[in-house]
Order: sequence, then structure tokens, then C-alpha cells
Amino acid sequence: MASRPGLTPIKEAIPPLYAGVDLGGTNIKAALVDKQGDCLAFHSEPTHAKRGPEDAARRMGQIVLQLARDATATPDMIARVGLGSPGPLDLDRGCIVRAGNLPGWDNFPLRDRVHENCGLPVTLANDANAAAFGEFWVGSGKEYESLILLTLGTGVGGGIIIGNLSVQGAHSHGSECGHMIVDTSESARMCPCGHAGHLEAYCSATSLVKAARHSIENGASGSLADAVRAGAVLDPILIAREAESGDQHAYDLIMEVAQWLGIGIVSLMHIIDPEAVIIGGAMTFGQTNNPIGQSFLERIQSEVRHRTFPTLADHTVLRYASLGGDAGSIGAAGLARLAHN
Amino acid sequence: MASRPGLTPIKEAIPPLYAGVDLGGTNIKAALVDKQGDCLAFHSEPTHAKRGPEDAARRMGQIVLQLARDATATPDMIARVGLGSPGPLDLDRGCIVRAGNLPGWDNFPLRDRVHENCGLPVTLANDANAAAFGEFWVGSGKEYESLILLTLGTGVGGGIIIGNLSVQGAHSHGSECGHMIVDTSESARMCPCGHAGHLEAYCSATSLVKAARHSIENGASGSLADAVRAGAVLDPILIAREAESGDQHAYDLIMEVAQWLGIGIVSLMHIIDPEAVIIGGAMTFGQTNNPIGQSFLERIQSEVRHRTFPTLADHTVLRYASLGGDAGSIGAAGLARLAHN
Repeated sequence: MASRPGLTPIKEAIPPLYAGVDLGGTNIKAALVDKQGDCLAFHSEPTHAKRGPEDAARRMGQIVLQLARDATATPDMIARVGLGSPGPLDLDRGCIVRAGNLPGWDNFPLRDRVHENCGLPVTLANDANAAAFGEFWVGSGKEYESLILLTLGTGVGGGIIIGNLSVQGAHSHGSECGHMIVDTSESARMCPCGHAGHLEAYCSATSLVKAARHSIENGASGSLADAVRAGAVLDPILIAREAESGDQHAYDLIMEVAQWLGIGIVSLMHIIDPEAVIIGGAMTFGQTNNPIGQSFLERIQSEVRHRTFPTLADHTVLRYASLGGDAGSIGAAGLARLAHN
Repeated sequence: MASRPGLTPIKEAIPPLYAGVDLGGTNIKAALVDKQGDCLAFHSEPTHAKRGPEDAARRMGQIVLQLARDATATPDMIARVGLGSPGPLDLDRGCIVRAGNLPGWDNFPLRDRVHENCGLPVTLANDANAAAFGEFWVGSGKEYESLILLTLGTGVGGGIIIGNLSVQGAHSHGSECGHMIVDTSESARMCPCGHAGHLEAYCSATSLVKAARHSIENGASGSLADAVRAGAVLDPILIAREAESGDQHAYDLIMEVAQWLGIGIVSLMHIIDPEAVIIGGAMTFGQTNNPIGQSFLERIQSEVRHRTFPTLADHTVLRYASLGGDAGSIGAAGLARLAHN
């Protein structure tokens, strides 16, 4: 299971330093790291998205300076700031094009405002790309030269790293693996983005809950269905708990997610052929510490093995992420380091 | 339509030179190019695959030296040789793992034997990756920083170029776009590789002919069906000719290929987000010089536009390749240049 890296004292840090800020719909998380990716300080506070982007940009600037103070460093020791944000983004202009969780933030010049508020150069990146770089740099993928990270949460995020290249795309839409098409049948589910058959419509927390609700409304039986009919809140935690307690319906719902994920991963393996595919995000069911998390990973692996070439089945690593909620901020700092070099 | 680039005289060439060899099941094609990708000499001869890899490796070495003579250059002016080969390959070991069109060549140390036969360092690459680099360097994609090439022939090949990176993969399986999964339904077609629902099972010449035969056997009517029932050889050229003559059945078969190709391209756009997607290979129906080739491209474009995000629909270029059968050899030379730098 993910655990936060320990803190490195300033006297052991290898200069220069990089700050990473992970802007989310709920929280702003930040980390100060050295050249090797060792962490000197962390910070987290509510986004207060409704107060608007100007307020948040001001606080993000202050957080960067506060991180330096927390680590008994000075701002001039920070070479660059990385800023991970939900997308879609316009990386050239440094702004959010449209973010579902940040209403009213569209076209706000995020990168430049954070720069003005901390006085340091800022690199903007897609949040899932930043998280992928975090896992690549110091997390679950640090042994590998290339990886794909899929983050399963409210949506499905993706990040592709090949060598020192983060695949951001020519139009800021690179690594949007949640929007690959996995179902072209007439009954394909609709993705929140408005298109049919995308991976996200099968493998997000939202889609799992939707599939569960649909099956319960259509007469599914078992302890999950009973609990929901008795008024329990239907969410991935409840589904996982009932699956762990032996409810076949709940178990099948989770394994169906794993199956679709395996299909998406096979296409990604045939397109990118990375050394490792890493699965992260809240919807990993306790990872390998939990029997459901273990079964989920095994079901993904068996689908992949069934559908790919022997060489890739034997050699491509498939595992869970290890940095948890810190991947985004650490990875944003790593992308700042890439941009600085 | 594709046309061969003109020849540059040795006195106008910018050193160093690179030789590119494109090994196919039928022909060996080769080009000598300068640092800018300008061509000094071309050569083509039958592969004679049945004579075995030792014979072909000897001739490929000789071809490289002959190219130098043809251009009134000397072998020491050639910095490196690029060798494009059908795969799957093992790039680390420099050999073909298994090639359908080259029976008996498996595990032959192709790269090292060609090196021994010409005395020059050799870079091995997947043939479709080499062709992609050719189009990227001096062909239809030369204005762009990133592109994906899909080559439609007996199979469906893919090549992905991002900046100066050719996506070859951690296990020599990168850019195998023909093996992305586009159909997960129970009626998904089988790919020659043995897996279900791959793009290649919908968009290759083989798959088009198979779909045509299937529909004719199931009672399709029209001039194509009549011709085949009268004994005509069913191939993509006949299908295109009948479509051009107004046969709806033949036209629909070709448009179905375009539709599947559009689906695959959308997933690729959401994963890589390149500046351009280029369609090449024999099965492009005369490209824009022919009404069917024009309709084929337009049908792909409309499927893409229907399924992608507005930014990508508006900005991603979708066009035909321009180097034809020379893309592989020129691109192999380009990859040799990359490896040399």
C-alpha cells in the first residue's frame, strides 16, 4: 500500500530544489524535493475551488514559499515549480481549458499567475502525467526506463513516460488513456466526456457505481443489493467490502472493471510497449494488502496474459502505484526538473 | 500520390551519408541519403526469401557498397546503415523473432551479419517504424514534430515518432498499432496474430478481401459479387475498381475499413496526441488522385471528427503518406542517423 516518503533534511539534499504543486478539485497538495527526488517538505490544504482561481493561485504561490521555510531553505534554492492540474489544459498558454471539478476556472492563466505569486518559473502539466512521472522517478516504477500509469478515481487518468519524455501531446491531450475506445458495440457506455465506449466509462469509480446501480435496479441479489435497497450509500468502498464478505455480485462487478482495464492495457502495451504498467488511484481496493485488491490485480494480469504476445506477457511488469496521493506533487516537481535541464 | 524523390549529386550532398535498407518478403529496397535526407541513390532487388537469410544478408551488405559506387561516393563516407525488417524483432539481439513472410529466418543474427558483409555499423528497426521516420523526416509529415504512420497492406503496420523519438518499445513491440483492440464484442474478427478484435483484422488488405468474400458467400449482389462469381480474382484492386464504377456493395466494404480505421486513430490520438496521422501502404486506393481514395480519407476523417474532442478534430492533421515504397529505406537511413548522433 502507498506510504509517504520520509523527509530529507536540507543539509543532506542535493541541489537544486524543485517544488511540485498538485491542484485537485478538493485539495492542493505540494512537495519540495531535491534533484534526486528526495522530499524535504509536504503541504496540503483545501482548494476552496468556489473562491475562484485568483485566490487559489495566490495561495499556491504562498505554499511554494512556505515549503522553502518548512525545509529551512530559501526560495532562491528552488530552481523551478511544477504545477499539475486537471485538464484538458492548454500547455502553450498555461491554462485550464475546461475542468469539471473547477467550475469557472476555464481559460484562467494559471501558470503565469502562480509564477507571479511566488516569483519562480513554473511548468504546467496534466495531473495524471505528473503522477506518472512521480511513480517513474521515485515510486513504483523507479526501476524502469518507461512506464504507463493509469489512475482509477472519479475518472481514469493516464500518464506515459518513455525515457525522460512525458507524453503531453501536440495539443495538450497526450496520455489521455481514459479516453481510448474499448467498446465499439451498440451498447457501449457513454463516457462523461460525451463519447461512447471509452475506458473511463468502464473503469472509473463513477462507472463502477453506475454498473452496480443498474444491476441492482434490474434485480441483482446478494448482500450488496440488500444493503443498497435498505438505504446504504452505494460507493466503491461498500462494493469492495461486500465483495470481501463473499457477495458474488459485488465481486463480479469489480472483476468486470479489471477485465476492461486489461483490454485497455493490452492496447497500450501494443502501442507503447513500456517496461511497466502501474495502476494507481483511490479505486485500487486496498491494493495487495486486501484480498479484493489482490484479486483485482490478478484479474487484470490474466486478461492481459490472455490477449497479448508471449514476450510482452512474460516481461511487462504490471503492479500497483506506491506514492499514493503524493505522486502528483512529487511528479510535478520532477517535470519541473526536466524542464529546467 | 506518392512519387520518388529526385536524386542529389554527391557534390551537393551534406555529409555524412547514411544507407537505409528495407527488407521485405518480396523485395529488398535501399537508399543512400545525406544528413538532410536528400537521396543520392536507390536500389531494389528481389529478396529471394527462400534462399535463406545468409544469402540475403550477404546481398544486403553488397547493396550498401553498391549504393556508394552508384553515387560516386566511398564506403567510408557512410556513417551508419539502417535496416528495416518485418517483425516481431528482438532489437537487443538484432534479429527477427518470427516473420510470416520470411520463413526460416527466425533468430538469424540479421543486424550483425549485414554489418559483417558491409563493414559498417548497422541499426535494426521495425519496418513500419522506419517508414514512419521516413515520412517524418522528408515525407508527408516533414512539417510536424510528431506523427503516427499507419501502413495498410497485407497487414497493418504502425510507427510513432515524437520529436526525435521513434517509439520502438521496451521489448521491441512499440508502435504495433495494428494490434490495438478495436472490437471487444463476441463477434470480433480474429487477427492473423491469433488474438481477437485487433485493428489489423478490420483494416488490412487481407481483412478487406475476407469481408468481401464473406458477404458474397452470404448473397451480396452487385457488379463486384457478379465478377467474383464469374471467376474474377477477389483483391483490393478489384473491389476499388467496382466501387469506383458505382457498385454500392464494394463501396460499403471500403467505407467499413475507413470507419474502423477512424476508431483506431481516435484512440491513438487520445494516447499520443500527435500533430499528424499519416495513412500509407498499398491499400490507400490511389490516394487523393482517385475518387475512392478521396472518399476513403474523408470517411476516416468524419469518423475521427465524430469521436474525438473538438481541439483534436480541428488541429490534428490526417493525410496520406507521400514517399510510397521508398519510406522504409529512407526512414531506415534516418534512424541510422539518429543512432549515430
